[in-house]
Amino acid sequence: MIIILKKNLSEENAQPLLNNFTELGLSYHFSQGASTTIIGLIGDTSKLDIDSIRANELVSDVKRVSEPYKAANRKFHPNDTIINVGEAVIGGNSFGVIAGPCSVESEEQIIEVAQAVKKSGAKLLRGGAFKPRTSPYAFQGLHADGIDLLLKAKKITGLPIVTEIMSLSHLDLFSDVDVIQVGARNMQNFELLKELGHCDKPILLKRGLANTLEEFLMSAEYIMAGGNEKVILCERGIRTFETMTRNTLDISAIPVLKHCSHLPIVVDPSHATGIPWLVEPLSKAAVAAGADGLMIEVHNNPKTALCDGAQSLTPEQFDGVMKKITRQLEFEGKTC
Amino acid sequence: MIIILKKNLSEENAQPLLNNFTELGLSYHFSQGASTTIIGLIGDTSKLDIDSIRANELVSDVKRVSEPYKAANRKFHPNDTIINVGEAVIGGNSFGVIAGPCSVESEEQIIEVAQAVKKSGAKLLRGGAFKPRTSPYAFQGLHADGIDLLLKAKKITGLPIVTEIMSLSHLDLFSDVDVIQVGARNMQNFELLKELGHCDKPILLKRGLANTLEEFLMSAEYIMAGGNEKVILCERGIRTFETMTRNTLDISAIPVLKHCSHLPIVVDPSHATGIPWLVEPLSKAAVAAGADGLMIEVHNNPKTALCDGAQSLTPEQFDGVMKKITRQLEFEGKTC
Amino acid sequence: MIIILKKNLSEENAQPLLNNFTELGLSYHFSQGASTTIIGLIGDTSKLDIDSIRANELVSDVKRVSEPYKAANRKFHPNDTIINVGEAVIGGNSFGVIAGPCSVESEEQIIEVAQAVKKSGAKLLRGGAFKPRTSPYAFQGLHADGIDLLLKAKKITGLPIVTEIMSLSHLDLFSDVDVIQVGARNMQNFELLKELGHCDKPILLKRGLANTLEEFLMSAEYIMAGGNEKVILCERGIRTFETMTRNTLDISAIPVLKHCSHLPIVVDPSHATGIPWLVEPLSKAAVAAGADGLMIEVHNNPKTALCDGAQSLTPEQFDGVMKKITRQLEFEGKTC
Amino acid sequence: MIIILKKNLSEENAQPLLNNFTELGLSYHFSQGASTTIIGLIGDTSKLDIDSIRANELVSDVKRVSEPYKAANRKFHPNDTIINVGEAVIGGNSFGVIAGPCSVESEEQIIEVAQAVKKSGAKLLRGGAFKPRTSPYAFQGLHADGIDLLLKAKKITGLPIVTEIMSLSHLDLFSDVDVIQVGARNMQNFELLKELGHCDKPILLKRGLANTLEEFLMSAEYIMAGGNEKVILCERGIRTFETMTRNTLDISAIPVLKHCSHLPIVVDPSHATGIPWLVEPLSKAAVAAGADGLMIEVHNNPKTALCDGAQSLTPEQFDGVMKKITRQLEFEGKTC
Repeated sequence: MIIILKKNLSEENAQPLLNNFTELGLSYHFSQGASTTIIGLIGDTSKLDIDSIRANELVSDVKRVSEPYKAANRKFHPNDTIINVGEAVIGGNSFGVIAGPCSVESEEQIIEVAQAVKKSGAKLLRGGAFKPRTSPYAFQGLHADGIDLLLKAKKITGLPIVTEIMSLSHLDLFSDVDVIQVGARNMQNFELLKELGHCDKPILLKRGLANTLEEFLMSAEYIMAGGNEKVILCERGIRTFETMTRNTLDISAIPVLKHCSHLPIVVDPSHATGIPWLVEPLSKAAVAAGADGLMIEVHNNPKTALCDGAQSLTPEQFDGVMKKITRQLEFEGKTC
Repeated sequence: MIIILKKNLSEENAQPLLNNFTELGLSYHFSQGASTTIIGLIGDTSKLDIDSIRANELVSDVKRVSEPYKAANRKFHPNDTIINVGEAVIGGNSFGVIAGPCSVESEEQIIEVAQAVKKSGAKLLRGGAFKPRTSPYAFQGLHADGIDLLLKAKKITGLPIVTEIMSLSHLDLFSDVDVIQVGARNMQNFELLKELGHCDKPILLKRGLANTLEEFLMSAEYIMAGGNEKVILCERGIRTFETMTRNTLDISAIPVLKHCSHLPIVVDPSHATGIPWLVEPLSKAAVAAGADGLMIEVHNNPKTALCDGAQSLTPEQFDGVMKKITRQLEFEGKTC
Repeated sequence: MIIILKKNLSEENAQPLLNNFTELGLSYHFSQGASTTIIGLIGDTSKLDIDSIRANELVSDVKRVSEPYKAANRKFHPNDTIINVGEAVIGGNSFGVIAGPCSVESEEQIIEVAQAVKKSGAKLLRGGAFKPRTSPYAFQGLHADGIDLLLKAKKITGLPIVTEIMSLSHLDLFSDVDVIQVGARNMQNFELLKELGHCDKPILLKRGLANTLEEFLMSAEYIMAGGNEKVILCERGIRTFETMTRNTLDISAIPVLKHCSHLPIVVDPSHATGIPWLVEPLSKAAVAAGADGLMIEVHNNPKTALCDGAQSLTPEQFDGVMKKITRQLEFEGKTC
Repeated sequence: MIIILKKNLSEENAQPLLNNFTELGLSYHFSQGASTTIIGLIGDTSKLDIDSIRANELVSDVKRVSEPYKAANRKFHPNDTIINVGEAVIGGNSFGVIAGPCSVESEEQIIEVAQAVKKSGAKLLRGGAFKPRTSPYAFQGLHADGIDLLLKAKKITGLPIVTEIMSLSHLDLFSDVDVIQVGARNMQNFELLKELGHCDKPILLKRGLANTLEEFLMSAEYIMAGGNEKVILCERGIRTFETMTRNTLDISAIPVLKHCSHLPIVVDPSHATGIPWLVEPLSKAAVAAGADGLMIEVHNNPKTALCDGAQSLTPEQFDGVMKKITRQLEFEGKTC
């Protein structure tokens, strides 16, 4: 961490500030320049609060040199984390596709979709039982019944299930769920993240609509700091000024996150744009950029879907995408 | 709501779609054009799901004409909502300043700050007991003890207290809190909003960093739909590309929200920019643009603050701001 | 175009407004609803000024239904535009790589780079002679000498050259240039675009940092409206809140633009992120998403580059990327 | 400037890099830490190219400590720059309002508006002769005739005129114009800025839609580096995700720019939001935040305006705004 002091300050005058750092077990380099004096802190600064230092009357600015995340950092954990869920493997050389409807609507619907996506090669079944909707008047999901239906579909198809949690108070309902999803709107619901840090289940953490990659990794860090290292990152588009697509898929997030972290990353092309005919080219782009998996919305009857039907693929469309993706994964030398 | 169909479609061919709407009690106008056919829906469309309609194979696009929020809408509630908390009044012609530290740190600190801000004219005391921090390693607040200390400060000064809730599971601890704050990161924590809809306390709802004003009003609608109409909106800066300020204060949000909604709106210039010398000009701008209140961070010793010290004013600086704001409110003919 | 009127307005009362449209040769559908009255305009509305209509005292809002661009619109020109430059072909099934240094610095440099990129498979040579630099104190390019050096490199290697124009007043210097580039900062320099509409050369038009895809196509339309239909679109990253990459590559722009327009689209992964190790994964993603070409910065000695060295590949790194891209293009069935 | 090196590098091993800096007349501090080695450069680093340094194989990252702008920097020019144009004064304690139509349409129109705005207290007349329009099919302005009409209006009213230049090639037409405006889309048209640096006229420089405040000051620096120090900055809204307003007025830009620079700053509330009823509250906010002037669109007949009518005030509405602003300026102790 680099601390830039106000003009013309000698080491002696900065001593009260410097003592704070030595008391915290840090050492420092002091460089008095003509117009600027700089302190370089040496040691583990990940727990220092930048804002408090910046508030010091001697300080002009503070800049971090090393990353504030540890557990999620590839520097301290060079090998890829690989997540196993039932027979599905995500990470390393293994690619996994998660597919299913935006929300679980009926037994018939979820089983039909589950069988279809399994046949096309999906390794996990997704489906919302608790749905975060912008409007309080919109369909909010079947709740506990939705989870029961997912478990029925799992029983029939063998596909592990992924479903979103929206509140700590529902955690008991998730005991048989295979992967718990944290949605984009809850990426910084820190109380929820802390509790999930004590679970022994993989957590699929979606990037918030306006969260930086550093904040994304810090939210993963919240879960990992509690002891749960099975975090799958999910890029699902960020909010920008562009209006032709609902959000802007940040494709660079894939190689950047893989560079900074050992955690696997999956891409959700359905939510990123809200447009079904973009799922195929964006899925291919995600594979090419090095993603470890995809999360794709599939509905047996998109036009009657109770939520986000517009972005869902039909099972036939999904099968077409999977055929292309499978060939591409072979070309890339990945297992799926 | 306007539905734009695919080319050359007669009313007869669109009948299956149109029947859906008549079944929902809506009527419609059908306009077949040379290149585009349009359906104008008439009736209460606030509960229709745009995405499902958009997914229909006959539909090219859907555009809302009327706002999806009802309870928060000024059209259906022309008079300003006025929130009374103890002796504080926010809304209508009454302006209220909420002040205090980012987080409650000790009895001495919160009482000293409470007494100082009261003397300078603040009407409510703020202080964080549960702190949403990007890093799991940063100070997370004193939790229940923090609320106890706020209540002590209230007892001594008479100032009603405002503090943030981060999880439904803590709700019991907030029984003596006067105003419950929902932070920017939880603006779309819908399960929390629903529960607060059943409280009989004012809710201070902060705008999310990347949420549109319509989404902001929809989150207010979540609370109001549950029966709690005492919502105070708080603009606290949005995330943009600019880096000189931490966020960009959206000053237009004040007149736009007052135009669309009857709810009072307060502005938080401290979090909007993270820079203490911007608090005064931005407070004045907020008053001039028609805000109903301000929320300002004050710490008796910013340089040792455990959180966000860099943006806090000292009690002396706050007193200076309050003197200017008070004169300006008199000039504007407002009560404070 | 749909015009939403203020409440309770009969066709008779709207007649003055409606007459304006019939005078312009447009017909309309008038739909008086309970709370909203809507006019649907029928005919060519691409030249109507939305703002003037919106300013009418009877009008509440105006929404476009059809696109405001014509010449660039795939609806009116279903086949892909294919651009031939020397032996290079961009568009349709043909993929072209444009490579070279950010700026031309010396004869030795540009020739060395030109020979290297040709050997690796680039089809066009890029190099800046006029450089748009944020600082007036930064190196601004070799100007006319830079173009001369590019022409020497062309003579030796046979590679057609692409270089950026920054001002109409320099146009004479570009008479032997093969492809004229319009940089992101000039995407809405409309006077320049108009003039380039009278050129008989392909124009490589880069998307502005904060321009929507619709604005991008409208700028292409400026060139095409002047008679020059040889426009190559270039996605080079947009400005967002993310700071780990210099800009955010909008990968969805590729399939969206190809859907809306017949123009070829190339991707510049070097400028999009400013990070050399991201060039390979983003180039692969661009190919997978359907791009027609790439524009990659290559410098024989990035560490002494006078401009943007940090993002340039060495010739060896570029060769590595080209080998992967070539295999991938074969897999995709494209010619390169 | 701070340079962060790769791990475990001794001063000896960094010598080749360090020599570059000493050759440029800079001195340095070298701090070898446990995990990071830092070089602090001392001297005038404003002309160093960050990218070239970042490209060096020894370098991990580079961070600027001092601002890259000199002439525009308040550090080197502590007193406010005051711009005199005829009888108008902008800057210091003097506030000036610039008003007029988006575009000049006819002699009758511009003279009627000029007389009206003068009567209400405007100090300068604005009007577009060259109009940057997103669509090539939209009205582009009266060009030379428009400037002639502005000069007629000046002759009659005595108001100095402000009008936008879109191309260097039109510069001769601006010889009698009092203030030359550079529009948002041309803020980084560097060739234009350079040429305006040789003019002896005030330049009103509008902030680009997606340009940071630092880039804004660097564009002012382009003009000032050429010798023309009469630059007026204009904040006119930035592009964000919010859609209720056309752009987001960055009110913080006013105090931040006044802190960093001595140049006067005016605010354009008309273009910032595109909504006429927001002009009054945003004008008041701008005054309260410390702006030196306003730029407001006024049209004698907004509903027939050929461009941007929707955001124009009528002369009566403008008079109402001016009455409020004048009272507020008196309250603030400013001259207008």
